[in-house]
Amino acid sequence: MAEEKLPTRAEDFSEWYNQLVLKAQLADYAPVRGCMVVRPYGWALWENIQQGLDRRFKATGHQNVAFPLLIPKSFIEKEKHHVEGFSPELAVVTIGGGEKLAEPLIVRPTSETIIGHMWAKWIQSYRDLPVLMNQWNSVVRWELRTKLFLRTLEFYWQEGHTAHATREEAMEETKQMLDVYTDFAVNDAAIPVIPGAKSDAEKFAGADITYSIEAMMGDTKALQAGTSHFLGQNFAQAFDVKYLDQTGQLQHCWTTSWGLSTRMIGAIIMVHGDDQGLVMPPKLAPTQVVIVPIYKTDEEKSSVLPVAKELKAQLVKANLRVTLDEREGFSPGWKFNDWEMRGVPVRVELGPKDVAKQAAMLARRDRPGREGKVSALMADLPATIEELLVDIHQSMHDKALAFRRANTHEAKTYDELKKAVEAGFAFSYWCGSGDCEAVIKEETRATMRCIPIDPTSVLGNGASDGSGICVHCGKPATQRAIFARAY
Amino acid sequence: MAEEKLPTRAEDFSEWYNQLVLKAQLADYAPVRGCMVVRPYGWALWENIQQGLDRRFKATGHQNVAFPLLIPKSFIEKEKHHVEGFSPELAVVTIGGGEKLAEPLIVRPTSETIIGHMWAKWIQSYRDLPVLMNQWNSVVRWELRTKLFLRTLEFYWQEGHTAHATREEAMEETKQMLDVYTDFAVNDAAIPVIPGAKSDAEKFAGADITYSIEAMMGDTKALQAGTSHFLGQNFAQAFDVKYLDQTGQLQHCWTTSWGLSTRMIGAIIMVHGDDQGLVMPPKLAPTQVVIVPIYKTDEEKSSVLPVAKELKAQLVKANLRVTLDEREGFSPGWKFNDWEMRGVPVRVELGPKDVAKQAAMLARRDRPGREGKVSALMADLPATIEELLVDIHQSMHDKALAFRRANTHEAKTYDELKKAVEAGFAFSYWCGSGDCEAVIKEETRATMRCIPIDPTSVLGNGASDGSGICVHCGKPATQRAIFARAY
Repeated sequence: MAEEKLPTRAEDFSEWYNQLVLKAQLADYAPVRGCMVVRPYGWALWENIQQGLDRRFKATGHQNVAFPLLIPKSFIEKEKHHVEGFSPELAVVTIGGGEKLAEPLIVRPTSETIIGHMWAKWIQSYRDLPVLMNQWNSVVRWELRTKLFLRTLEFYWQEGHTAHATREEAMEETKQMLDVYTDFAVNDAAIPVIPGAKSDAEKFAGADITYSIEAMMGDTKALQAGTSHFLGQNFAQAFDVKYLDQTGQLQHCWTTSWGLSTRMIGAIIMVHGDDQGLVMPPKLAPTQVVIVPIYKTDEEKSSVLPVAKELKAQLVKANLRVTLDEREGFSPGWKFNDWEMRGVPVRVELGPKDVAKQAAMLARRDRPGREGKVSALMADLPATIEELLVDIHQSMHDKALAFRRANTHEAKTYDELKKAVEAGFAFSYWCGSGDCEAVIKEETRATMRCIPIDPTSVLGNGASDGSGICVHCGKPATQRAIFARAY
Repeated sequence: MAEEKLPTRAEDFSEWYNQLVLKAQLADYAPVRGCMVVRPYGWALWENIQQGLDRRFKATGHQNVAFPLLIPKSFIEKEKHHVEGFSPELAVVTIGGGEKLAEPLIVRPTSETIIGHMWAKWIQSYRDLPVLMNQWNSVVRWELRTKLFLRTLEFYWQEGHTAHATREEAMEETKQMLDVYTDFAVNDAAIPVIPGAKSDAEKFAGADITYSIEAMMGDTKALQAGTSHFLGQNFAQAFDVKYLDQTGQLQHCWTTSWGLSTRMIGAIIMVHGDDQGLVMPPKLAPTQVVIVPIYKTDEEKSSVLPVAKELKAQLVKANLRVTLDEREGFSPGWKFNDWEMRGVPVRVELGPKDVAKQAAMLARRDRPGREGKVSALMADLPATIEELLVDIHQSMHDKALAFRRANTHEAKTYDELKKAVEAGFAFSYWCGSGDCEAVIKEETRATMRCIPIDPTSVLGNGASDGSGICVHCGKPATQRAIFARAY
């Protein structure tokens, strides 16, 4: 596998991505068009993502549940915007147990409707609120153009769903979960993101407001990496989700939903990867440290291997995820390339001379070549590696942030915007009109990614002038938006 | 909720079960016939089951993966027995994205076929073997008679799938995973099980041999709580899964599969539950300890609550799963009943007198009333509770084992068997003929549950005479089987 060379990112970013996903054995194409198989290395990464998020969900009071895969087709039709958005994308079960079904069932594209149906039964009084739920599952949307992890017919995600007594509380929850996603992206995935509000054209079908976190990929395109929706009372009204308030009045609930999917794996690949392959963020890497023993003779082997095993045991004890590469018939150099392609953050090279010196050579994946190499005493290794992983995380984040800022341009005129979206993000005043947005999309293939909640953080230059003129129509505008071509 | 009384198990075991599942908020009926919603308390139990199993799977070298939900219908037809077994139970997607599909897709009832398809691509050489995979997902089987957790159209499970170079290695894996299930049932779920081989009539559609673990429920009926299948080369031949062996010959792989589902939750309810409600095994209980503060006046409240909170913090620090019941407007007695119904293993009662004595009263769920109560000094509580939980686990297991043995009868004649299966398990010599098995099933509604791997452990009486005569036809027989009515 490792012998076939990847195209460079400059040559063909899309092919670099497709081949890397296959070569690193993260995923493969399934026999059904547009579906994927997530292989062990990819799923181990997803499990680490799940743990990082699940911990945060539980710390904020959410409980996991499981709502069914199959939903009566009529449910999807109860919320006007929801049905418009999802009808064209449905997979429909029409036969069950050998017989034609009286009512067709859809394979869930998302679960607002069936959850609304159950909440109507469970929620009676203000005492039952808030309801804070999440589920880990897969959903199916009949996409036409697919790409592994980024857009597949079936994808894996979590979908959070909450119900509240007041509008304020539901808005707070919507923003809290956006913050949770931002915190996860920055602190676990080492991906700087821009949290902000979507336009009406880009929001979730059935939401009043959709927030998202947007990241810049290595080819300067945007990727929406998580969304948090304020659903108002739309679904509560469609499904009759009501509660008796403290004054004895019957009120509709206010609801939210929020999701983050295996797209995050695509983001990790495209933000951090280089021409040698993956670069895994240390907190999520399935293997954080690989030990490659180096020897030529049997004698060298018998001096090196026991030390390598002892080192592995020590690192495991320090709660690090460690692999000792004992494969026979492969040279150390071949193994270096192989693990580099897989993106393992730290490589420990251990040869007879290192053993004699009670030391080892460490190589960091994020800084290829000599620059990323450092020798360390064996006794210090667990602590040294732990510090190194913290430093790698920070460096990866900072590098991605610098790249995003270098490729984000404040565009004041439409010509500037056209130029900016050829090579990154345009950051421009926008009047908020859907017409301007539609023309920009039509003419530049760039969409309104979000209106950043904190505009000063986009370029980090502190500039925050209160108003300007719309980059397209020239009318007065009070908000700035990110426009970019996107995945 | 807690006010409505459950029927007793003696009155109506089936209704006791149905009502308890709803009342304890483990699950609810979904809008689609035969589907269920797993609520937070039920899913928390399943997450603990998942952790107990996943740890064991990883310790035995298995890696998690995700194969798709949708499978081309033609795949299911490639293995003769498999198609016979599963065809009548399929949910079929015929419409995708608004158009009729050229080839219908099935919602996976199990994943041997699609995994076989992918393995044919991935497995080339003996160096690629063994392949040891597992996935956590849900599957759909169009069942006619359903019951929450025990048999639903969609259910949650794990399905392990492995490929090996030799028959011996695949058999070893099949038995290893049966041992893993046994170990989990006994040591985590406190459920004594009988591991053994199924008959040809009862084995998995496509397997050469199916092993299962069988448990006795509180109404003396049997429940199959996990299965491990030796698939021979059946699926490898159907899907062309081959490898080059060390001599350069192309060989078919030998494969296994094994699964344990949310039925285990049904088993936990029916093995341990009593007329007051659930009795959760300590290792899997979502809440292991509930602290109920007792006070009447505000003064008492302000002396008791801070101590209760401090105690909770100490128990959490000791890695126990603890709930402090601070709900206002409910009496301590009401709370006791409520948590008893939910099956929390240990209740800590903390009133002003306890606080004054620096002590607390502990009540164990598995021994209702005075017998299960013990007072302990506050300083000793974490350690005392940890010991108590170990003791509760063992007592629950031993009680269930004694119950099973008391209701298992060695039946030497067909009349004895008929009588035995009215009130439990019959343990009888069986000639192995499918004809005898079919008549017994027809006439007594008892099925051949398994041929125990260790017949001496069934009754624990050490009896192990080598041969006898078939309980039905009277011909010589060398093996003993469990016959019972089953879920």
